[in-house]
Amino acid sequence: MKICVLGGGNGAFAAAAHLGLEGYQINIYSPFKEELDSIIKEGGITLKGCLGEHFVKGIKVCKQLALAVKNADIVMLIVPAIFHPQYARLLAPLLEEGQILFLNPGHSGGALEVKQILKEQGLAAKITLIETNTLTYITRKTGYNEATIFKVNNSVLFSALPACETPAVSQKITELYPELIVADSVLETSLANFNAVMHIPLVILNAAVIERTQGDFYFYFEGTTPAVGKVIEALDKERMAIMKGLGLSPNSFLEYFYQIGMTTKDAYESGSYYRVTKESPPNAKIKGPDSLKHRFLEEDIRCGLVPMAALGDLYKVDTPLMDVLITLSNLINEKNYWEEGLNLRKLGLANMSPQQVLRYVKNGKVN
Amino acid sequence: MKICVLGGGNGAFAAAAHLGLEGYQINIYSPFKEELDSIIKEGGITLKGCLGEHFVKGIKVCKQLALAVKNADIVMLIVPAIFHPQYARLLAPLLEEGQILFLNPGHSGGALEVKQILKEQGLAAKITLIETNTLTYITRKTGYNEATIFKVNNSVLFSALPACETPAVSQKITELYPELIVADSVLETSLANFNAVMHIPLVILNAAVIERTQGDFYFYFEGTTPAVGKVIEALDKERMAIMKGLGLSPNSFLEYFYQIGMTTKDAYESGSYYRVTKESPPNAKIKGPDSLKHRFLEEDIRCGLVPMAALGDLYKVDTPLMDVLITLSNLINEKNYWEEGLNLRKLGLANMSPQQVLRYVKNGKVN
Repeated sequence: MKICVLGGGNGAFAAAAHLGLEGYQINIYSPFKEELDSIIKEGGITLKGCLGEHFVKGIKVCKQLALAVKNADIVMLIVPAIFHPQYARLLAPLLEEGQILFLNPGHSGGALEVKQILKEQGLAAKITLIETNTLTYITRKTGYNEATIFKVNNSVLFSALPACETPAVSQKITELYPELIVADSVLETSLANFNAVMHIPLVILNAAVIERTQGDFYFYFEGTTPAVGKVIEALDKERMAIMKGLGLSPNSFLEYFYQIGMTTKDAYESGSYYRVTKESPPNAKIKGPDSLKHRFLEEDIRCGLVPMAALGDLYKVDTPLMDVLITLSNLINEKNYWEEGLNLRKLGLANMSPQQVLRYVKNGKVN
Repeated sequence: MKICVLGGGNGAFAAAAHLGLEGYQINIYSPFKEELDSIIKEGGITLKGCLGEHFVKGIKVCKQLALAVKNADIVMLIVPAIFHPQYARLLAPLLEEGQILFLNPGHSGGALEVKQILKEQGLAAKITLIETNTLTYITRKTGYNEATIFKVNNSVLFSALPACETPAVSQKITELYPELIVADSVLETSLANFNAVMHIPLVILNAAVIERTQGDFYFYFEGTTPAVGKVIEALDKERMAIMKGLGLSPNSFLEYFYQIGMTTKDAYESGSYYRVTKESPPNAKIKGPDSLKHRFLEEDIRCGLVPMAALGDLYKVDTPLMDVLITLSNLINEKNYWEEGLNLRKLGLANMSPQQVLRYVKNGKVN
């Protein structure tokens, strides 16, 4: 298979190196071309971490998006959710019949938003749109031209939009990531956005110290205090309530964080959201966001709490805490995230009844 | 006149020393008797600050509340608002015909709550209940048995409940504090609670660092960041909107803070809530609260934002930010401040129409 990787950050480097190592033909493109210069110069990517140490050659850096997309079986978009709309507009005329457009991850509502934009842009080709709830890797660029994959995630959900198209692409997708789990629909992937549940309470209750120090403290280890744990817990309960309202069986943040190896057994067994968040060896040395415009707030409100709260509204599940945190974020960043974020209109769900939304995400038809 | 001072903290020491120096006969009582031991031992209080340096003798420390109150012209309650209910219950059988019960300050809703409790306790004596919006001093205990008054405040509002009784006691009160300003009613004093407007945003956006360091940072100077300034500003606008809804002319926090000498001319003229809060020479070296149970949250939610939001509801003024901050405080401290705080029921205003409330605070009669 031929894979097009769109992006030039941590995730994109990991995917290009990992899938290149597996023998796939890789095209990579980033609008920030300097992100990829090192690959051109070195003729490949140095891969380290859980998959061993390799120099992965043969990754083709494309100067133009059209060339990157051309003839790819899978177009994998690995960028902050905030860039989804721009990519969707650029991709609409380029996508080819039969291609899979893979949002890795979709965050919350990514596939819904992208589908809506592709439609507005008059996408002609019949493609399959899929998303995961979170990135398929725990990874960082660890040096000039070096990707370290700490873990290939094993509890990642994915779904096509509509979900009835999932089976047709499952084989290709699980060939790349054998441990992906098929979700009920993109509503399930959207509501399993644990980043938003964890980051927003951490950012809000550390807002002043983030601004004062530009994030110069250990974000998870120092920034997590009992109050932060309580707010994460309450937020997670709202998220789970929405999922239950949709007839889905939610995994708690505690379960999830332990499953993916991000917290200790002791912390998990204590049942304390405070301990589970704070006692995270892989997060221990990660510093705070450099400002309140960081993706831990911007992305996790816009493409996290706003679409979740919108689904809560639609399915008559109260989300007072999500609303509180969105209101405070509006104030702090002088934005209107209700409008700018993925509300029902931006998700392409405006004027649909709850039943119509279910039909839309499952069968692609409203009636 | 004979003055009974109830309390043993910063404000009570300042009032006892100041009014003792002025030649009034002072009784002082605190249920925390050790707070007053130094006065007994030294035979007075050392007063420093803007009124010069004096050793003020003749302050009578009373072991029993009844003895302190007996024959006093004015009973001045100078305690955290959280202790108002207990004092009201104890005072109901002790107050004497013609006495003035002076809440210095009432915070928000203090006089209304105390009146309601005195009524429930079957107070027989006809007394006059008055409150100020803030303490009449900027003061701290600066050492063993030493009160330093940095400033006798000059923009303090006061009112009797009902307001029609204000003229009858004005002379006695302004004899003590000539610069007090007569407010429209206790609704105006209650809505001029600037502490709540400033402290709650500071505490919430510094919540994690308060817990992590037990307040070991300069609360106002370091804790005030642009985001904090924005939240204070938005909160102040809600407070002013409620006052306007009541037909009152509000002073902004900016005006007030500058008037009382708590910020610089430059900061004031910039119009920036961030600068006005941060650039406060008297606050520069004040450390943070030692926990999230501190009065900067407990008192300022319970006897600040809750009664303000309740008045907002009554007069149909939306207070989304007050609601947000109360909701977050509930979560953080595992309380229900809507119930525990001064809601309309605790203020004695339940089941009254907005017009009835106005009659009640102005004339003491509902119909």
